[in-house]
Amino acid sequence: MADMTIGIIGAGRIGQLHAEHILSTPSIELKGICDINTGHLKGTFIEKNVSIITKDPSILIEDEEIDAIFICSSTDTHCYYIEKCALAGKHIFCEKPISFSLEETKAALRIVEEAGVKLQIGFNRRFDTHFRKIYQTIQDGKIGKTHIIKITSRDPEPPNEEYIKSSGGMFFDMTIHDFDMIRYLSSSEVKMVSVATANLVDPCFEKYDDVDTAIITLTFEDGTLATIDNSRQAVYGYDQRIEVFGEKGLVMAENERTSNIQIATKESVTLDHPKYFFLDRYKAAFQKEIQEFAQAIINHEPLTCTGEDGLQAQKLAIATKKAWKEKRSVSLNEI
Amino acid sequence: MADMTIGIIGAGRIGQLHAEHILSTPSIELKGICDINTGHLKGTFIEKNVSIITKDPSILIEDEEIDAIFICSSTDTHCYYIEKCALAGKHIFCEKPISFSLEETKAALRIVEEAGVKLQIGFNRRFDTHFRKIYQTIQDGKIGKTHIIKITSRDPEPPNEEYIKSSGGMFFDMTIHDFDMIRYLSSSEVKMVSVATANLVDPCFEKYDDVDTAIITLTFEDGTLATIDNSRQAVYGYDQRIEVFGEKGLVMAENERTSNIQIATKESVTLDHPKYFFLDRYKAAFQKEIQEFAQAIINHEPLTCTGEDGLQAQKLAIATKKAWKEKRSVSLNEI
Amino acid sequence: MADMTIGIIGAGRIGQLHAEHILSTPSIELKGICDINTGHLKGTFIEKNVSIITKDPSILIEDEEIDAIFICSSTDTHCYYIEKCALAGKHIFCEKPISFSLEETKAALRIVEEAGVKLQIGFNRRFDTHFRKIYQTIQDGKIGKTHIIKITSRDPEPPNEEYIKSSGGMFFDMTIHDFDMIRYLSSSEVKMVSVATANLVDPCFEKYDDVDTAIITLTFEDGTLATIDNSRQAVYGYDQRIEVFGEKGLVMAENERTSNIQIATKESVTLDHPKYFFLDRYKAAFQKEIQEFAQAIINHEPLTCTGEDGLQAQKLAIATKKAWKEKRSVSLNEI
Amino acid sequence: MADMTIGIIGAGRIGQLHAEHILSTPSIELKGICDINTGHLKGTFIEKNVSIITKDPSILIEDEEIDAIFICSSTDTHCYYIEKCALAGKHIFCEKPISFSLEETKAALRIVEEAGVKLQIGFNRRFDTHFRKIYQTIQDGKIGKTHIIKITSRDPEPPNEEYIKSSGGMFFDMTIHDFDMIRYLSSSEVKMVSVATANLVDPCFEKYDDVDTAIITLTFEDGTLATIDNSRQAVYGYDQRIEVFGEKGLVMAENERTSNIQIATKESVTLDHPKYFFLDRYKAAFQKEIQEFAQAIINHEPLTCTGEDGLQAQKLAIATKKAWKEKRSVSLNEI
Repeated sequence: MADMTIGIIGAGRIGQLHAEHILSTPSIELKGICDINTGHLKGTFIEKNVSIITKDPSILIEDEEIDAIFICSSTDTHCYYIEKCALAGKHIFCEKPISFSLEETKAALRIVEEAGVKLQIGFNRRFDTHFRKIYQTIQDGKIGKTHIIKITSRDPEPPNEEYIKSSGGMFFDMTIHDFDMIRYLSSSEVKMVSVATANLVDPCFEKYDDVDTAIITLTFEDGTLATIDNSRQAVYGYDQRIEVFGEKGLVMAENERTSNIQIATKESVTLDHPKYFFLDRYKAAFQKEIQEFAQAIINHEPLTCTGEDGLQAQKLAIATKKAWKEKRSVSLNEI
Repeated sequence: MADMTIGIIGAGRIGQLHAEHILSTPSIELKGICDINTGHLKGTFIEKNVSIITKDPSILIEDEEIDAIFICSSTDTHCYYIEKCALAGKHIFCEKPISFSLEETKAALRIVEEAGVKLQIGFNRRFDTHFRKIYQTIQDGKIGKTHIIKITSRDPEPPNEEYIKSSGGMFFDMTIHDFDMIRYLSSSEVKMVSVATANLVDPCFEKYDDVDTAIITLTFEDGTLATIDNSRQAVYGYDQRIEVFGEKGLVMAENERTSNIQIATKESVTLDHPKYFFLDRYKAAFQKEIQEFAQAIINHEPLTCTGEDGLQAQKLAIATKKAWKEKRSVSLNEI
Repeated sequence: MADMTIGIIGAGRIGQLHAEHILSTPSIELKGICDINTGHLKGTFIEKNVSIITKDPSILIEDEEIDAIFICSSTDTHCYYIEKCALAGKHIFCEKPISFSLEETKAALRIVEEAGVKLQIGFNRRFDTHFRKIYQTIQDGKIGKTHIIKITSRDPEPPNEEYIKSSGGMFFDMTIHDFDMIRYLSSSEVKMVSVATANLVDPCFEKYDDVDTAIITLTFEDGTLATIDNSRQAVYGYDQRIEVFGEKGLVMAENERTSNIQIATKESVTLDHPKYFFLDRYKAAFQKEIQEFAQAIINHEPLTCTGEDGLQAQKLAIATKKAWKEKRSVSLNEI
Repeated sequence: MADMTIGIIGAGRIGQLHAEHILSTPSIELKGICDINTGHLKGTFIEKNVSIITKDPSILIEDEEIDAIFICSSTDTHCYYIEKCALAGKHIFCEKPISFSLEETKAALRIVEEAGVKLQIGFNRRFDTHFRKIYQTIQDGKIGKTHIIKITSRDPEPPNEEYIKSSGGMFFDMTIHDFDMIRYLSSSEVKMVSVATANLVDPCFEKYDDVDTAIITLTFEDGTLATIDNSRQAVYGYDQRIEVFGEKGLVMAENERTSNIQIATKESVTLDHPKYFFLDRYKAAFQKEIQEFAQAIINHEPLTCTGEDGLQAQKLAIATKKAWKEKRSVSLNEI
């Protein structure tokens, strides 16, 4: 009775997250999930509710009932699966970043285009209520021409060493969301990037030629200036704030707290903490990105975020890494 | 594969709401729904996903697969169905208020007790994140002995004339939630009630011997004072705030807004409105009350809110109506 | 070079407060201060800057250079000095309450009127920035007809036994400010008063036939309902909040905090406390009430708060005390 | 009877501001004020209350009763007067920036040191309640080692052309306050500066080789990263926010609003605007910087902000201008 049938490649943290959200959406069916290891799914809610649990992705890719595939495997396999899915005529939802190589990404996007399937990238924040209201406020002309965009994006705690090792570095793994958001909010493309970095949270980042703290400055074609500040460790919780300042005013989004209560005693006046991490903070956005993906396909409408958006965010990550390594401002023309 | 199977009696606004929430909870199955009219369900998501659509409640009450019945019909039928369900050995979730007559309610509760089934009343606000944190803060002793409890509870717009006519009056229809909340938060029972009332929103209320604006003052056995202020029309949205003041401090919950954004221009600095009404404001609480109901039954645990709580809230509504009519403070001993 | 010359009768806490504010206002001169004890002024900033320090009030009242007298002595002497000053042609600023007896107050006001001098009562909160903006918002019609007025007014700590003994009771000493505020904000007079009380803070209040916690409910001629909640001890600081709810919306004032900072750590997210007490919270309002008093006299303009306002607030205190003692609603017609 | 006697050189906007604040501080006497034009003081409150109004600064500098001189004349005269005053043994309060030339500043500071007089620079924001609480929170170790400092500093409206022409440019005129604040809050010195700039507010800035919008990124010796975002025009009011993020948490200061009221209607939920500009926003800080200056001199205590602080802020302005002109990161060692 579902309007759409889905298969998932990759049953790690994010794959399971999508699986649970699809299973709670009655109009979308999750038919199968695939991973090189499936043992960890034994006895889970997912196993009970999904027909096919397999180690072979082609079983899903070739299943005629499946309309779309979610690619949630490791980044280095994304382009391979994008191509396979596109050639099989499946619509694709792919997690970010598309890849670490511009050539690979461009090749994959070309095949997607030729196959005429839809490709959405997992930039879940575009589907967040608060950020979408910021977007709408700008679109409505309420703040006029944008002058300064500021994104604060800080994780509550650093990932473990294993993760750091294969993450592709902070700019590809974490800032990529901020690069996409800043493009989403601006109506112009980035011209120049520079960055100031530091290793203040954990020496492990330096060990893998990575940083854990950064301030990235961007200049847009239309003169807008922007800054992103990242940290791998905000001990008070997931810090996700945006402000956009323009000719006619300012629009900004505060963090969501775990509750709206305030406690006042002799010792202190306290608010609740920001929501702790992305599973909690962006739960509704994760659900919405699936619903909008399904709707766009069913109704033949344009997607909110496309492969091209994935490519552009990847370019910004590459430019920022270059700016860091070469200690200079980098023009996007160089990428 | 569901852990629990449910039937719903009453497919009005609240019955449909529960139906949708149950259908989005994979571990609970909604097998049937019953109403004297079922035409309005044609082609809906509910019709597509529920096996039994019927006008005969006994079909659900006698269905062996059904573990629990949600009673969402009109208030005057609640006790009748409570008794039927209890005698059939079904667990019961009943919307508020249980009835307009104390005798009826008491009789129904007696049968529930004898049948050994569980009965939860639809005081959804007990399951709200913010209010539960207030409860927990008090339980943790953070504000010490309570001195003053204040509830602001204002609907965004008055109901239509048809609804007003059969609502039982503001105290039974609307304040009943606040009566329950104030009992939930206090650790003592109410001793005295007085009320100041006004007809300021719509003359229609006066027509049906009702009010639309009220300040209710309550004195508890332990000396705590409380005030509830109600209005049938807060044009800026559903106003649902609580504060509890005690010997060691204050805990309070602000309204939830539709988003956390702020827009500052030359003309104004604006926040988003409070969520507009209960469907939106208490969505998560409605889902949680179902989940906790199911868990309590499955795990043989006590309920968060019971038939006794329904009875006590009903007593407070009766006392307040008496205080209004007789223009004096009314002792709960009189009820 | 000053525009106005002032004398103060009463060099207690409030008298000294006014003295310091006058001394910091270059356009107003403080010529003399009088008290039955003047020893505590030795070596103070006041002594250094005031020409006359005396135990004899007539020295100030008869001084030809003095334009106005501030009466800051104990409440039982207010009317005596009001009459003396009025007869000497001095304008008068008198602290609240005017007296504990309606007859005395009325007699004093009559003499003031006959003498043609101006009399302002020390309802400093009318001069507070936030509350005046609430007043202006109502006057501008932004919230339409008022429906519900709520005042939260809680002291940070109870006064000492000596003070309690001679304070006249909480309604005369503390709530009198709230009575005036609620009249200031409404455009109608109070019709009925009822009250719920408790002794929860300190048994000392009961010893002197007083209460320390109360919820007062007022009904206005125009149907507006109002509630004032008082406590003698809010351990988190001076709690001074007002909200006015009407047909077209709500206007409310939050507490002023000692600073606007927020500190977020792993353990907590904290704001600063509300300002601790009236010296701090209403400093600007105390300065403003002096400036506006002087301006009204110099420019022959009407005062913001008059003897009549003092009389009406006193009536409300009397009615509330009666409601408390007689455990019933009291009509203002009875007073 | 005053504890200290002061003379002011320069009766422009800032000189008059200091004059009024001194005149409202009873323990400090303002004996004289000097300007090349004194006509605009005719009939003012200042003229009425100050003994000497002169066009000749030496009359004040040589006056034996005067303990300290406030230098509020144009920037290009600062060092000249600093030297004159120091040689005359007067303590000095000098407005920012000290000068546009490092050599001049260094020479002046040397003479001050040799003369043994005190020199305070007019970095009024160090005396602001909120920012001082941020400072104290950091000093108390509550947020641990600092990682990221963010200053938002935006004027409500651009100055007029005349002012822009002689302002020395945004970095010297406006950002100089932010440079000082960021040094005040950090416990380390700046190592590198880079900047992204734009001309978005008014073409007039470009005309005088200036910018109106900038994001400045600073790297400190201890690894701390910082960003300052400036605009000459925030149409919603003076935007003055700071946040400091560290290993153990975050401390941040919100803008002060003109009042704490909130108005909720069907159309909008509004807060009051931030205070409009520095006269209003920093009124208390301006008063406090005078009081602390006087106290430090009277009690022979160290100053809160010294000539050295003025010099360092000036270096940062020079480095930022260089970074802008040369389109590269600039090391402070180059300055």
